[in-house]
Amino acid sequence: MGGDRGPEVVIAGANISLIRHPETKYIMFGDEAAIRRELLKYPKLMERSEVVHTDVSIPMDAKPSLALRRTGRTSSLWKAIEAVSKGEASAVISAGNTGALMAMSKFCLKTLVGIDRPAIAAIWPTVESECIVLDVGANVGADATQLVDFSIMGAAMARALFGIEKPSVGLLNVGVEEIKGLDEIKKAAAALRELELPLTYHGFIEGDAVGHGVVDVVVTEGFSGNIALKTAEGTAKQIGAYLKAAMNRSLMARIGAVFAQGAFRALRQKMDPRQLNGGIFLGLNGIVIKSHGGTDETGFASAIDLGYDMAANGLVNNIKDDVEVINDVRAVDVAS
Amino acid sequence: MGGDRGPEVVIAGANISLIRHPETKYIMFGDEAAIRRELLKYPKLMERSEVVHTDVSIPMDAKPSLALRRTGRTSSLWKAIEAVSKGEASAVISAGNTGALMAMSKFCLKTLVGIDRPAIAAIWPTVESECIVLDVGANVGADATQLVDFSIMGAAMARALFGIEKPSVGLLNVGVEEIKGLDEIKKAAAALRELELPLTYHGFIEGDAVGHGVVDVVVTEGFSGNIALKTAEGTAKQIGAYLKAAMNRSLMARIGAVFAQGAFRALRQKMDPRQLNGGIFLGLNGIVIKSHGGTDETGFASAIDLGYDMAANGLVNNIKDDVEVINDVRAVDVAS
Repeated sequence: MGGDRGPEVVIAGANISLIRHPETKYIMFGDEAAIRRELLKYPKLMERSEVVHTDVSIPMDAKPSLALRRTGRTSSLWKAIEAVSKGEASAVISAGNTGALMAMSKFCLKTLVGIDRPAIAAIWPTVESECIVLDVGANVGADATQLVDFSIMGAAMARALFGIEKPSVGLLNVGVEEIKGLDEIKKAAAALRELELPLTYHGFIEGDAVGHGVVDVVVTEGFSGNIALKTAEGTAKQIGAYLKAAMNRSLMARIGAVFAQGAFRALRQKMDPRQLNGGIFLGLNGIVIKSHGGTDETGFASAIDLGYDMAANGLVNNIKDDVEVINDVRAVDVAS
Repeated sequence: MGGDRGPEVVIAGANISLIRHPETKYIMFGDEAAIRRELLKYPKLMERSEVVHTDVSIPMDAKPSLALRRTGRTSSLWKAIEAVSKGEASAVISAGNTGALMAMSKFCLKTLVGIDRPAIAAIWPTVESECIVLDVGANVGADATQLVDFSIMGAAMARALFGIEKPSVGLLNVGVEEIKGLDEIKKAAAALRELELPLTYHGFIEGDAVGHGVVDVVVTEGFSGNIALKTAEGTAKQIGAYLKAAMNRSLMARIGAVFAQGAFRALRQKMDPRQLNGGIFLGLNGIVIKSHGGTDETGFASAIDLGYDMAANGLVNNIKDDVEVINDVRAVDVAS
């Protein structure tokens, strides 16, 4: 029921993802009549879908605390998360209210042992391929322990998504020199250098290195991570507008644009934010994917694909194993 | 003596800016022989320049604390700042060590009464024109009082630079809803809504709104501001690389590129970071401009132009007047 356009986009997106992954089964939570109306358009998807009716859906602007009250527990959002906690579903994908999704996911799925706070990870396009950036907005601020947790979880995700044995991890900072930046980042850097972890600690990186693909995983606290993500999106849009204006400024340019239309199509695809839609909540006992609320079916299909990949690659168990390593180290630290 | 290429770029840049502002006079601080060698290339500039020899120059990687020691006071950087404090120069422009420039500027010029910490402001290109973003890295973190100070200083700069009577100011945050984000930002928002200031408070803005030109002045603390700035620069470069690759991928695209070369030239110019080179230190008793260390003469000339504009428009007195307004308000607050 979530997102700006509700079941229409969600179900059309599921249909696209189903073509790519025909073995997927869906449980659709929400207003049964609205869902069935959309499902009629996609007979194959209907065959693979179970519909669970709910009377309540969480408004996009509801406060997370409100969502957790009694009626919230009867909502489509809660029921979908619950399906993951009960093992009926491998992942939940929603274009709904981010705050409510996070609050309910924490409450229903619980965080992994040793993980204080979940993070939201995004896939970020780079010049050569992609990298993972977290936290892009689950929390404001993070201490050194949490930054180390984010590093471990991000690395586990990179292993699952990119198949890299020891992903490289960089801490986002205002300078690459070791003397700069916040104390918590420096402490996290010291821990990452010292600990034996299934990742390669790269060091500090600056904002311009993210899109350059310098590391597989970029770690930062949620405030700056969210601002970096949104700023990059805004800059991409802005340059798209410049390009469009430039190609319309003269007859010669318009002729050039006709010849280069294939190139521009490839560029548009490369810059299309729908290709990498979907933030993933890391640090929970289950896979939760947040799709952009304003996306269309192509974007929502990408979010489902991400959930599919993460479930197929056993992300949660991967993270669990790696977090246990660090929990053991920390237990020794405390004991000694 | 600063920047990656020293006097060569600085002096060539001064010559470019002199053509645009023939009434400028220069005082060049540094190794006299090296400066005179470069000045020989530009007779008009030589006529308008005085050279002050110094034996010491601050290395690009020197720690700010080292720069402030005894020998630091004999350096070209210190002497140049001192010229502003003595009223011999209207602005100092340097491509040197940022940390040393800031530390020395604070020490030598002092902050304005009521201003706790200076900020670095950058001019940010937007879809329609430009906006001002601060702090882009003078300090990590900022409390509500400092965010209000930044708002006042940024608005004064927008008035001087864009000629807008009551510039609009937005606080960078992770959401536009009033409930979101850091406490200090919320407190700053409350103060900005309440106080009678020579600016229009817009509210919270997200990262993607910066380049969209939603406000004239974007205020944030230095960590996220620096990351936003660098991320935008990185994204612009990344898309430039995509575009180049796209226009080389086929014969048709290459033919298109030939037709559209005028358009691409305009686009490149629009995206050229050298056009808006120069961070300005706000909150000091004097105008200090930091040029990017890696820039060329075109970029350095932009930094000089910025210093020129700010001096010609009486930026420091403008800020002083506006800060006095807020100081009075605060004094009443304390008294009551």
